[in-house]
Amino acid sequence: MTKKYVYFFGAGKAEGNKDMKNLLGGKGANLAEMTNIGIPVPPGFTITTEVCDVYYKGNRNYPPELDVEIDENLKKLEKAMNLKFGDPEKPLLVSVRSGARVSMPGMMDTVLNLGLNDKTVQGLVKMTGNERFAYDAYRRFIQMFGDVVLGVPHNEFESILEAKKKELGVTLDTHLEADALKDLVREYKVLIKQRTGQEFPDDPRQQLDMSRDAVFGSWMNPRAITYRNLHNIPAEWGTAVNVQAMVYGNMGEDSNSGVAFTRDPSTGQKKYYGEYLPNAQGEDVVAGIRTPLPLDNLKEEMPEIYKELTDIFETLDSHYRDMQDVEFTVQRNKLYMLQTRSGKRTAAAAVKIAVDMVNEGLISKDEAILRVDAELLDTLLHKTVDPGIKEESVVKGVAASPGAAVGKVVFTADHAVEMAQAGEDVILVRKETSPDDIHGMAAARGFLTSRGGKTSHAAVVARGMGKPAVTGCEAAIVDEDREEVRIGEVLIRKGDIITVDGSHGKVFLGEIELQEPSIGGDFATLMGWADEIRTLGVRANADTPQDARTALEFGAEGIGLCRTEHMFFGEDRIRAVQDMILAETTEARRTALDRLLPFQKNDFKDILKEMQGYPVVIRLLDPPLHEFLPSYEELLVEITTMKAKGCEPEKLEEKEKLLTRIDRLRELNPMLGHRGCRIGITYPEITEMQVRAIFEAACELTKEGYKIIPEVMIPLAGHVNEIEVARETIDKVIKDVIGSHGVELTYMVGTMIELPRAVLTADEIGKRTDFFSFGTNDLTQTTFGFSRDDAEGKFLPYYLDKKILSDNPFETIDTGGVGELIRIGVEKGRSANSALEIGICGEHGGDPRSVEFCHNVGMDYVSCSPFRVPIARLSAARAELINPRKGRTKTK
Amino acid sequence: MTKKYVYFFGAGKAEGNKDMKNLLGGKGANLAEMTNIGIPVPPGFTITTEVCDVYYKGNRNYPPELDVEIDENLKKLEKAMNLKFGDPEKPLLVSVRSGARVSMPGMMDTVLNLGLNDKTVQGLVKMTGNERFAYDAYRRFIQMFGDVVLGVPHNEFESILEAKKKELGVTLDTHLEADALKDLVREYKVLIKQRTGQEFPDDPRQQLDMSRDAVFGSWMNPRAITYRNLHNIPAEWGTAVNVQAMVYGNMGEDSNSGVAFTRDPSTGQKKYYGEYLPNAQGEDVVAGIRTPLPLDNLKEEMPEIYKELTDIFETLDSHYRDMQDVEFTVQRNKLYMLQTRSGKRTAAAAVKIAVDMVNEGLISKDEAILRVDAELLDTLLHKTVDPGIKEESVVKGVAASPGAAVGKVVFTADHAVEMAQAGEDVILVRKETSPDDIHGMAAARGFLTSRGGKTSHAAVVARGMGKPAVTGCEAAIVDEDREEVRIGEVLIRKGDIITVDGSHGKVFLGEIELQEPSIGGDFATLMGWADEIRTLGVRANADTPQDARTALEFGAEGIGLCRTEHMFFGEDRIRAVQDMILAETTEARRTALDRLLPFQKNDFKDILKEMQGYPVVIRLLDPPLHEFLPSYEELLVEITTMKAKGCEPEKLEEKEKLLTRIDRLRELNPMLGHRGCRIGITYPEITEMQVRAIFEAACELTKEGYKIIPEVMIPLAGHVNEIEVARETIDKVIKDVIGSHGVELTYMVGTMIELPRAVLTADEIGKRTDFFSFGTNDLTQTTFGFSRDDAEGKFLPYYLDKKILSDNPFETIDTGGVGELIRIGVEKGRSANSALEIGICGEHGGDPRSVEFCHNVGMDYVSCSPFRVPIARLSAARAELINPRKGRTKTK
Repeated sequence: MTKKYVYFFGAGKAEGNKDMKNLLGGKGANLAEMTNIGIPVPPGFTITTEVCDVYYKGNRNYPPELDVEIDENLKKLEKAMNLKFGDPEKPLLVSVRSGARVSMPGMMDTVLNLGLNDKTVQGLVKMTGNERFAYDAYRRFIQMFGDVVLGVPHNEFESILEAKKKELGVTLDTHLEADALKDLVREYKVLIKQRTGQEFPDDPRQQLDMSRDAVFGSWMNPRAITYRNLHNIPAEWGTAVNVQAMVYGNMGEDSNSGVAFTRDPSTGQKKYYGEYLPNAQGEDVVAGIRTPLPLDNLKEEMPEIYKELTDIFETLDSHYRDMQDVEFTVQRNKLYMLQTRSGKRTAAAAVKIAVDMVNEGLISKDEAILRVDAELLDTLLHKTVDPGIKEESVVKGVAASPGAAVGKVVFTADHAVEMAQAGEDVILVRKETSPDDIHGMAAARGFLTSRGGKTSHAAVVARGMGKPAVTGCEAAIVDEDREEVRIGEVLIRKGDIITVDGSHGKVFLGEIELQEPSIGGDFATLMGWADEIRTLGVRANADTPQDARTALEFGAEGIGLCRTEHMFFGEDRIRAVQDMILAETTEARRTALDRLLPFQKNDFKDILKEMQGYPVVIRLLDPPLHEFLPSYEELLVEITTMKAKGCEPEKLEEKEKLLTRIDRLRELNPMLGHRGCRIGITYPEITEMQVRAIFEAACELTKEGYKIIPEVMIPLAGHVNEIEVARETIDKVIKDVIGSHGVELTYMVGTMIELPRAVLTADEIGKRTDFFSFGTNDLTQTTFGFSRDDAEGKFLPYYLDKKILSDNPFETIDTGGVGELIRIGVEKGRSANSALEIGICGEHGGDPRSVEFCHNVGMDYVSCSPFRVPIARLSAARAELINPRKGRTKTK
Repeated sequence: MTKKYVYFFGAGKAEGNKDMKNLLGGKGANLAEMTNIGIPVPPGFTITTEVCDVYYKGNRNYPPELDVEIDENLKKLEKAMNLKFGDPEKPLLVSVRSGARVSMPGMMDTVLNLGLNDKTVQGLVKMTGNERFAYDAYRRFIQMFGDVVLGVPHNEFESILEAKKKELGVTLDTHLEADALKDLVREYKVLIKQRTGQEFPDDPRQQLDMSRDAVFGSWMNPRAITYRNLHNIPAEWGTAVNVQAMVYGNMGEDSNSGVAFTRDPSTGQKKYYGEYLPNAQGEDVVAGIRTPLPLDNLKEEMPEIYKELTDIFETLDSHYRDMQDVEFTVQRNKLYMLQTRSGKRTAAAAVKIAVDMVNEGLISKDEAILRVDAELLDTLLHKTVDPGIKEESVVKGVAASPGAAVGKVVFTADHAVEMAQAGEDVILVRKETSPDDIHGMAAARGFLTSRGGKTSHAAVVARGMGKPAVTGCEAAIVDEDREEVRIGEVLIRKGDIITVDGSHGKVFLGEIELQEPSIGGDFATLMGWADEIRTLGVRANADTPQDARTALEFGAEGIGLCRTEHMFFGEDRIRAVQDMILAETTEARRTALDRLLPFQKNDFKDILKEMQGYPVVIRLLDPPLHEFLPSYEELLVEITTMKAKGCEPEKLEEKEKLLTRIDRLRELNPMLGHRGCRIGITYPEITEMQVRAIFEAACELTKEGYKIIPEVMIPLAGHVNEIEVARETIDKVIKDVIGSHGVELTYMVGTMIELPRAVLTADEIGKRTDFFSFGTNDLTQTTFGFSRDDAEGKFLPYYLDKKILSDNPFETIDTGGVGELIRIGVEKGRSANSALEIGICGEHGGDPRSVEFCHNVGMDYVSCSPFRVPIARLSAARAELINPRKGRTKTK
């Protein structure tokens, strides 16, 4: 049997249906489906996507059977319409539209009124009794065909049109009478002859073939290729071509065209939402030349049509079991549906519709989960800038912490505090932030820095605080002395209002209206279903009791990463930290550490109490010690100035001594330097203090009746001997503290897996640890050899732009490289220790695709920023639905 | 049958032999062997190493059979000697010595004269007719036993001895008469009672048991454990205990003791080498109290003994087929051999002996190769500091480039040039060197820097130039302004002479005599044999024609890494390089690159011509661009000073503009930054210029009749798409240049594999490349997460010291982690492209154990510093002998 290349629909019956999207494209499949379920659709036929594939594989030749099939289907169509293609009396007119599996901009879209020529236009005049209408359709056809099929620029037709209106002294197209339109037809044809060297084709069948060629040709135009590459759409999919009998919404006041949604796409409420234009074609509605009327008007103007239309809405909504986005035309009091498809919606609407449809019995909970794009939830959890706003951002940087904020610009932490106390909203703008700025960051609404990426101090602190931040905004030249930022020609001074959009890395001048977060009842319902389904635990990365509370509110089941270094930055303790670092002897270091112990203990007590009943993974000190010291360069400038201007020699000497100390500690590549467990190994007294603080806090709380589950995490280990040495210190202190308190305590000692070497020796390391937590931020840095801060400010945007990398590997796990390592690590770890608890605490823990990867690779939990916990919960549920895990149950 | 725990030797027959070292220890096995081949050895027996293992595994209990076996063997020994243990008339006296498989310091060594007590000493008097001798033996026994078995400090015995000598007004021990020695025996016993609370044991059998216990006990003392850990010796190996009848070299002028080598251990010449002391025990020779006489003296004094002894030398040398290190004693004109073992030797001797023995028909070429420790060759290739020198170094740093040099200290490159032109040898001392110092480095004999590790600029340049460098010498505070270095209390000024030992990272004040390199005919012979045997190619890392010449002289078969960036640093081109980097537009960058092109082309021409007939791997620009710019901090200081002192605003503005530019380019972690292929991808015009320079050079030379084989290497790729993009540029230029020259050219395009991600996707990358070169320096940095510069100056020494890491992974490939990745990379690469040429160009390519690894993993070649090529050649041959490779043949 030969292949079938063309599928007919019409007269209540179609050869295709909605499940044949791969063959007929989305539009074609849905036109067939609507036909089959009795909805009035102008008849037509679809040339399949296979033809497109055959066409390209065969060096732009069509399958030989195609022509015959088209002829047959044209005949059927003529019969269904009782019209004849090219007939001067009763001409059949058609539209030609592209239609791929998924909606794809960049391709040829539509040619309307195809079949008109100087003869058939007379038939149209007769059929409609309206010469002006007929010639308007004709000149529109020539314009569209000339533009999209023949490639004559659109604006050249518009110039002729404008000239004609000017000549006749009219302003609106609709005021052009039949004669003027006849002129236009003539003039358009001349233009086409001039530009293409060919006559405009009169033969309707030739018009059809050329339009078909244009649709298939547009599948390979640069814009379409770029779009496909961006969305990973294979070229083999191809596009279909839909040929459909024309209906007209512009045949008078008893005609109209409209678009509608079966539910409200912005709130999700179950009420029809749409607009229509009387006496207009569909393209007029979209073009926005006249203001459309709300659908309610139709109820009054054409109650029967309205009833028929809304009945169709109900039918489609429940037939497709999803909110539909439809197009319709009423031609002389007769309703035709031209398109239906699942409608785009806001995050809030997505949640509400999914939950409502479960309650309406239309879909299952599983389907509801699969209906909501997890990434979209982010917009529900923060104030956001409406993505559709007209305002242009003044500059772009790294989208370092999501959400948006409006405030007055300040350049110092102290000013931030001052103005915040005076009741002002402020945005802190710095070259980069440092521990010294913490109080100012707590007071500000959002941050803008000119240096640093997503792992910069500003970014990390901002995400922890749930405040928006744009970092690495290199085009913004921040002059902290003069208190101003220069962005090209624009100068922003202290006190000027700006809006920072940390979700998109944008900065706007002035105040932009923000959308409020909306975590309604439906949101909670959906999350509850997700929790029933998922087998992957979700924890949060949280450093403070405040973070912990947020995490719990968002549904976290523990803390997967509590960074202890942020506790070192507090104003009341940074001095002791610096004394500890600059200590010349172990004794002096111990003395400084003794001063820190009570602070750390209280910090841990607060956070452990907040998280009672849940595990809390506490990471031992990780950053290189020089991060806690004053900036080398600032000190260098200070000393140089002192020297140049002259000053007391003792003072200078003291400063120079400090400079030398800092110089010895600083590193060429701090990311790969003396940090992580390397600190606790070379200075075991630091580990001792931290472990003592954790377990004294835990024991005291246990005595008070709290259930406390600490998990001590050794950072940046790469060799099992590091674990051995670290555990020697850790185990000794734990034994000592628990022994002296005489309490029972469940705890674990584990490690972060964030170096390739740790992965490759995960079997050895797994034997000596209770848990692994994949630190995918650093693992990505070392696997790619990318310093995130440097990469994101320099070559990474170029790489993403040129598609050298399809995704930013710091946002979505690079499954080919980093993911491969994770797989090896999980396998080796479990092979050595089947009880090993395995999670992830890199920022990927809150990225939907990465969560799915973690589920598939067999992790016990993911841990992410508190504000991304709901995203992770939903993603985990989706992952379970797509790939159910056997044998493993959710870790609480 | 029960196990045998004790092995007898004596009376011309032994139960053991030389192949039983594992059971009898080295000493015991060789005593047995000598006995068997008829060499006079005092009889005795060996308690096996198994007893040691059983002892420790059984909680320090001996196997029950042991006592009986010792009794039996003591009887045999009594019979062989015709003496009786504990007999007051004819007492048997024995020595007790430890003896493990390999010589191991830190353990109990020796107890002599065991069996003496107040009664048996009388027997000794009678037998020798020498009361003084007998009591001297007795007091020595008590002293030794008290010290090594009972743990009474040696110096307490010495104090008593000194007091006695003072009392009697004598200076030499030998002047103490019998009565004085009797006093000492009494006083020693009192001391032992005081210190241990126990009487000195009189029973010879108890003395023997206690000594045996002490030997086995010393196997687990901390020094022995540390030594074992350092040398990877398993605790299970255990030590044996040798009990042997005493012979005395101190029985008068007809007696003596000596040590000798069967060949000269420092030159390898085939002539006996040794010394002896008349009327002395062996320990006296070693202790160096009297000056021993050369062996030639014995020829005159005791010609028969000398004949017998040298006959034994010949026998042993040819029986063991290796130079032997022997101990002997002549007791009353009778010769006894007490020990034989393979003698330690210098590198020169090792080479000469190995070659000589092949010529003498004693060993095969294969054995000769296996006899020479490849690492030792290094000392033959550079001037070196004699490792045995007495002088203490004033400071230690990183051993960054091997060899040693003496010269006057200078602090600037210009001074270095100036003084070198005046005929002085100079050592350039800097905080760190930079491209600006190149001319000074070329003029200096060696370098000392206070910052940077083995990959610092100074280190890399020094190794390339074959000059010694000590870097990262943090204890040396370099003040370049005052032209002085302060090391603790020591101040070194310009013009002071120092010696830098780059092989050991040491710096000496003043001039130290250096050993000359010695690459004699034997060296060449051995290397020739190595080349016949090995299947692994050896190339060199060379950046200049000079390097290339050295590499060829040392036997390199190509260049495995030619770094193009060093060509950028030349005085005549650095300006164009900086203009290129600071260019604001692609056009401006191209203009600067056009200025560079002729320089690069000439560079490549020179080096390619030098290497004609051999492949030359040329790496495209690798370091981050900011490395070529002036130092940010220096400029900052300059600007700050200008500001403080006031200056022309335009000048300041210009400087500030430059500072901003540099600030934007510099990176937090340059190692993981915008470097490697990322540069050539974002600025393809740089790649274009380099590839054009390479291929124009190659084509022009080809036309001149040279055979040129360029291999273009893309650095730091981690994703196949990077290769795709880079190759697009590269292939186009190659086609263009070759096409326009119209020549035939064999070339390759490949990549460095130096990132974990490249390894994990080596199958994808292998499909698009002709060769892989493992860049194990960076691969080690990323796999471990170690910045080499930072690690070596900070925590790595601690890690090595505490045995957290057994080897420096930057010197020897970490087989557990980095090696695992290399294995994966080779396998994936070859699976995708069986023709893939695979090599290594990290510094590991010159490390013997790493070369062995590369051989085993199936690489085609290693590439290393020119000065390490011979080491690699020998190591490759050894690897082939140990693990012959099937199916692969050497790459030429």
